[in-house]
Amino acid sequence: MSDSTQNMGEFELIGRFADVLGTDLPPEIVVGIGDDCAVARRGTDFDVYTTDTVVDGVHFRRGQIPWFDLGWKSVAVNLSDIAAMGARPLHCLVTLGVPEYVTGDELAELYRGMAAVTAEHGGTIVGGDIVRASELFITVSAVGTIAGASGSEDGLPALLRSAAVPGDLIAVTGDVGSAAGGLKSLEDGLASDREALMERLYRPTPRFTAGLALAAAGVRCAIDISDGLIADLGHICKASGVSATIRAADVPVSPLLKEAYPDTWTELALSGGEDYELLFTGPAELIDGARDAVEVPITVIGEIGESNGIPDVSVLDGNGRPIPIGARGWDHLRP
Amino acid sequence: MSDSTQNMGEFELIGRFADVLGTDLPPEIVVGIGDDCAVARRGTDFDVYTTDTVVDGVHFRRGQIPWFDLGWKSVAVNLSDIAAMGARPLHCLVTLGVPEYVTGDELAELYRGMAAVTAEHGGTIVGGDIVRASELFITVSAVGTIAGASGSEDGLPALLRSAAVPGDLIAVTGDVGSAAGGLKSLEDGLASDREALMERLYRPTPRFTAGLALAAAGVRCAIDISDGLIADLGHICKASGVSATIRAADVPVSPLLKEAYPDTWTELALSGGEDYELLFTGPAELIDGARDAVEVPITVIGEIGESNGIPDVSVLDGNGRPIPIGARGWDHLRP
Repeated sequence: MSDSTQNMGEFELIGRFADVLGTDLPPEIVVGIGDDCAVARRGTDFDVYTTDTVVDGVHFRRGQIPWFDLGWKSVAVNLSDIAAMGARPLHCLVTLGVPEYVTGDELAELYRGMAAVTAEHGGTIVGGDIVRASELFITVSAVGTIAGASGSEDGLPALLRSAAVPGDLIAVTGDVGSAAGGLKSLEDGLASDREALMERLYRPTPRFTAGLALAAAGVRCAIDISDGLIADLGHICKASGVSATIRAADVPVSPLLKEAYPDTWTELALSGGEDYELLFTGPAELIDGARDAVEVPITVIGEIGESNGIPDVSVLDGNGRPIPIGARGWDHLRP
Repeated sequence: MSDSTQNMGEFELIGRFADVLGTDLPPEIVVGIGDDCAVARRGTDFDVYTTDTVVDGVHFRRGQIPWFDLGWKSVAVNLSDIAAMGARPLHCLVTLGVPEYVTGDELAELYRGMAAVTAEHGGTIVGGDIVRASELFITVSAVGTIAGASGSEDGLPALLRSAAVPGDLIAVTGDVGSAAGGLKSLEDGLASDREALMERLYRPTPRFTAGLALAAAGVRCAIDISDGLIADLGHICKASGVSATIRAADVPVSPLLKEAYPDTWTELALSGGEDYELLFTGPAELIDGARDAVEVPITVIGEIGESNGIPDVSVLDGNGRPIPIGARGWDHLRP
């Protein structure tokens, strides 16, 4: 079939989706398909919506990730999208597609992991659905909210992918590449020796404190790092119509990752996904203003520039020379 | 594995889910897992949440239901849950698990069906996710809202499964059994001759006007008929701790269904699912008060009584004698 979706990536499929569904949105929809969350005006506040699905064999491997961690992560990645909007979480819905070989004890562990992340970070699970399926899948939908601020320019004090402007600094929370280090440890059969990296892969922390503090400080552009630093910075550039330059040497990396992968940690930090740290842009004084309110370090790694065509993202080495960019993150629908 | 979920039905699996996740709900959750929607207090209003998933080969057969109708129905069944709470729809999120053999044109038709039902009934689709999967599945999550009423006893003017009381009349909107007639026509290879029944199966109408009018009139108990009249009445009895008696001869059935299935229409009307009409209970004067505001006929079919053990639901024939109840609707996780 020439029209088969076999060779379409996720972004292309979502584009088709947006073509049909994204037109004629009612005026209360402030942000439609294409950011971390959709945003809908709700009285004087704004509600944000997101959903994310993981499928066995595509996004994880059953029997590899512990059931508790699978529950934690499947909810945490949705909460992370809400954090990346500068919103606070309200509620989640959970849908499970359950093959018959899954046991009741495994499901209970999965639920416990889900309950643990919402107990720690908010976003109570209020309902869901369970269906029979031939492969295990987990769909989580999450709703959050942003208090309206009359002070903000457009009344929407959210963090958007589309709000980067030339002259902004580029910064990240925490450190990046550790989740990719966990994935690599798994592939290398070293998972049991590298618990700290595995925890970064399996139990990401939604950065609510950071997101709320950044939004309160007046920062307006952010994304959570799920596809990888370069790929997600590319999403910001595309949505904002700008370019970006980062300095590889300034990208924050944990000592653990450097020790585990002394030769490849730069690549893991630049292209590895699933860290769920916040990548954001803004004037230096606003970023500095948020620093004290954030529980993790904030590191400036580059600057936003005018759009200068493709590639949008340039990475400079320690001598200011461009590093060729290979893998730009991952698109999990591609074969 | 003795603990395999192989022989667990949907209701048992959801029960385990509720055991882990349903404890320690924060005070703003007014209704948790177990009704058509969860209900969360939101300022002076109440928000309702629901999600529903369909899987190819379990809930529908690809190639049998037109793609447009599959899109319509997968969204409509969620909107129906919101209608059954007496709420109005706000927004939906849509997740697709897409095998490679699905074509772009098929997806576009699916999206058009989704857009058509929200254009007609509300609940704008604001976002979603698309993932690769080996079998097609569609998960829709929907949010609605109920305006708080200081006049209502508990401040929650919703329609709940748990609010039936002895002495209530039992009533339904529209007619029942036609969707099951459509399904039977399909099995009998007569789908092309029975468009009206097929439309009832494939393009159900969420009963928002009825749900809002019933709630405004003071009715407090309803469910939408998805599993079948007897099965869904059983859900009300279980949640409310009551029994129910209905008169088979009073159950409203379309002339089309009677013509198509002159020998089995009673069975289809009592046990067939997927009509998505509202089944509700209340005092006669409240039901009469809502009649004029509802776009479809309302028919009283029986009464709620004190709990008298199992079976909770009795069906009487034209002479007032009990009819033995066989199939009590369907539980789609059972083999």
